[in-house]
Amino acid sequence: MGSPLRRPEYPVLAAEAAASSASDLLPASVRTSFPALADTAETYLDSAATTQKPRAVVETVRDYHAVATANAARGTYPWSTALTQRIAAVRARAAQFLGAAHPDEIVFTGGATAALNAVALSWGLTALRDGDEIMYSPRDHVANIAPWLLLRDTLGRFGRRIELVPYRVTAAGRADTTDIAGKLSPRTRLLTVTHLHHVYGALNTLAELRDRLPERVLLCVDCSQSGGHIPVDVAALGADFAAFAAHKMFAAPGTGILYCRRRTHTELRPFLPGGTTDAVLTAAGFDSGVMPGLLEGGTPNIPGILSLGTALEVLDSYGMSAVAAHNRALTGRLIRGLRAVPGVDFLPGPAHERRDDGYGIVSFTLAGISAADLGFILAEYGFLVRTGAHCVPTDGGDPESVRVSTHIYTCLDDIDRFVDCVRTLAEELQ
Amino acid sequence: MGSPLRRPEYPVLAAEAAASSASDLLPASVRTSFPALADTAETYLDSAATTQKPRAVVETVRDYHAVATANAARGTYPWSTALTQRIAAVRARAAQFLGAAHPDEIVFTGGATAALNAVALSWGLTALRDGDEIMYSPRDHVANIAPWLLLRDTLGRFGRRIELVPYRVTAAGRADTTDIAGKLSPRTRLLTVTHLHHVYGALNTLAELRDRLPERVLLCVDCSQSGGHIPVDVAALGADFAAFAAHKMFAAPGTGILYCRRRTHTELRPFLPGGTTDAVLTAAGFDSGVMPGLLEGGTPNIPGILSLGTALEVLDSYGMSAVAAHNRALTGRLIRGLRAVPGVDFLPGPAHERRDDGYGIVSFTLAGISAADLGFILAEYGFLVRTGAHCVPTDGGDPESVRVSTHIYTCLDDIDRFVDCVRTLAEELQ
Repeated sequence: MGSPLRRPEYPVLAAEAAASSASDLLPASVRTSFPALADTAETYLDSAATTQKPRAVVETVRDYHAVATANAARGTYPWSTALTQRIAAVRARAAQFLGAAHPDEIVFTGGATAALNAVALSWGLTALRDGDEIMYSPRDHVANIAPWLLLRDTLGRFGRRIELVPYRVTAAGRADTTDIAGKLSPRTRLLTVTHLHHVYGALNTLAELRDRLPERVLLCVDCSQSGGHIPVDVAALGADFAAFAAHKMFAAPGTGILYCRRRTHTELRPFLPGGTTDAVLTAAGFDSGVMPGLLEGGTPNIPGILSLGTALEVLDSYGMSAVAAHNRALTGRLIRGLRAVPGVDFLPGPAHERRDDGYGIVSFTLAGISAADLGFILAEYGFLVRTGAHCVPTDGGDPESVRVSTHIYTCLDDIDRFVDCVRTLAEELQ
Repeated sequence: MGSPLRRPEYPVLAAEAAASSASDLLPASVRTSFPALADTAETYLDSAATTQKPRAVVETVRDYHAVATANAARGTYPWSTALTQRIAAVRARAAQFLGAAHPDEIVFTGGATAALNAVALSWGLTALRDGDEIMYSPRDHVANIAPWLLLRDTLGRFGRRIELVPYRVTAAGRADTTDIAGKLSPRTRLLTVTHLHHVYGALNTLAELRDRLPERVLLCVDCSQSGGHIPVDVAALGADFAAFAAHKMFAAPGTGILYCRRRTHTELRPFLPGGTTDAVLTAAGFDSGVMPGLLEGGTPNIPGILSLGTALEVLDSYGMSAVAAHNRALTGRLIRGLRAVPGVDFLPGPAHERRDDGYGIVSFTLAGISAADLGFILAEYGFLVRTGAHCVPTDGGDPESVRVSTHIYTCLDDIDRFVDCVRTLAEELQ
């Protein structure tokens, strides 16, 4: 991974270096497991917004509502206690799936956005002191920016000033580790980074920075796009906090995961406390030792959590390496195809690294047409892509673009037809 | 409803005064619309924990996952834009259903617990000044207590002291309006109350207090148990904030509603900001004028919100007055039946008002057996009830109890068999 002093500008990990080829593709029959894709002529290329749901997930959600609806962790009758056990099993499975050492490091939230906000509220609001610093990327998804802006604003109202220190991204869309290293200070308390960027499709492992990151600096990783798309190991990432969106991992919307490494537990306070938080209510206030209950108040999204359990089973049945290889091969095909189209300009990302692969996300513009208009035309031709600024809030960054994102139900033919369509449009524009 | 000076201790509203009788019952065929009850020998009497789901709701959730899964408010293609429109339609329908004057007063949250915490965080954290007071009931559900305890704790860490002023409940389980009136002070900023108590089944309208509540005091109403069970009109209640749990209104778990009366909007700050909050991000910070987006960050629980729309259609198809009348008649039957069983002692609630009706919730103890043991035995006989302390956190309150709760799929026969079972057990214990 390069020495701390001399390292490649863009770290090349073993998994990334693997050559991708058509032989890495999963069979096209995978698609038949996704009911919404069975009867449609549309080509869904927006998996970074949300993934399609496998039949097993659809059935898990249906069965919760139609077979034995009950609340969990409340009743003592079998409908209820069985749910409590199933939620515990999903927690244990999620811990294993993500490389967490203990199930009590897995917190279920309402989504990845809620998870990142939980870090700001349950940790940041009371752990930060005047003058402390948080490092972040202004070109990240707003869900990894707004919680910190709000936190700074809230603390400021109490006369406590914290600094949000922005770091740069490289031309390839990666967190610029040289810039980060140069901006680390004795007051740096948290570094937040996106594992897989939602527009650039660039992967950040910070591997070459890890040795220079002081132990006291907490690392927060937004894994919304990597979870369920590539193998994720929170321990290997060195994450103290990590956020995941279940609906981007084949599961139902309304559920997220916040990974909290055990060393953070003593610094946490309750998040949205309610019915299931009563165990942490004491005469003196709150017992911050009770995880994950400390951060889980109220009736959980039971069908959402159960659907996550099924989704992880489905992902494991393919194997995350095979899932990643499939997307890598498709991304390579897409980049090669679009490179040959006149007027296509790639946003930062793997296309700028002279690589022929990636992680299932590619964003680009086409000369002579706005991204919005291009998106509408593509939709007319049946290609469902995302267009716009993609929830990146800052000015002076990238132009609005078209984002293409894939998953295991995406076929080589989908990519080829998409590239053909863009090429035809480009020729008409000339 | 009584003059401010001379008023009945327990307000009697027109709806409450209506005599209940078996003719108020909905037909037993209602039950066939609830798939989970079709093939079971169990008698579900835990609707206050969560309601069963009508077939139409099951199908709405299924269709989202199995027919056209997409994200909302993001893509410009039809799968996505159609969802955006459907969510807006649910918001408008919910406003109408709950008596809100404007759809922008309806905020979708992860649940009722999140909704109450949103009031504490988005309003309380920055609106409260040193010495301000919040009035609350220590015998409410912990979801209407813990957010205020946490808020006091958080503010205290910044040197800002607020007071939580507890008020009493009457023997009938109602908020003691005399006590509240006596404890109102110039520093009272918020009064939080439960509309329908989750253990006592007692209704609080505060009607006789309303004239004495200064305009500056915000009223927060926990409608988790009343929403979808009796007609609720937030304007008639005089609520500034009101919280609802969709999963207790026939919809899927993971969705709640926070009603925020327009006059509160200027005092609100973002709640869990993220992807869909970017409209409120400005160079200066946050634009607090943008509701409901200000309090809705991240991907919403789309199937949950859609299921709420369907649930409201189902409830409207029966009519909320008919729903309330059904539960009123069943509650009366239950109270009369249990009154005749030796050893039964009612927790506070309508049974203590010499009334023969109520709102679908009755809690009691049986001499000679713990509530937990009684619950287990009842479950053996197929009666699914809730036992324990029911998420009421304080000591010195009520004993652990058995709670019976009904809804439109509950039949008179369910109640009679339940009473028979308790009577038989009581006789065996003697």
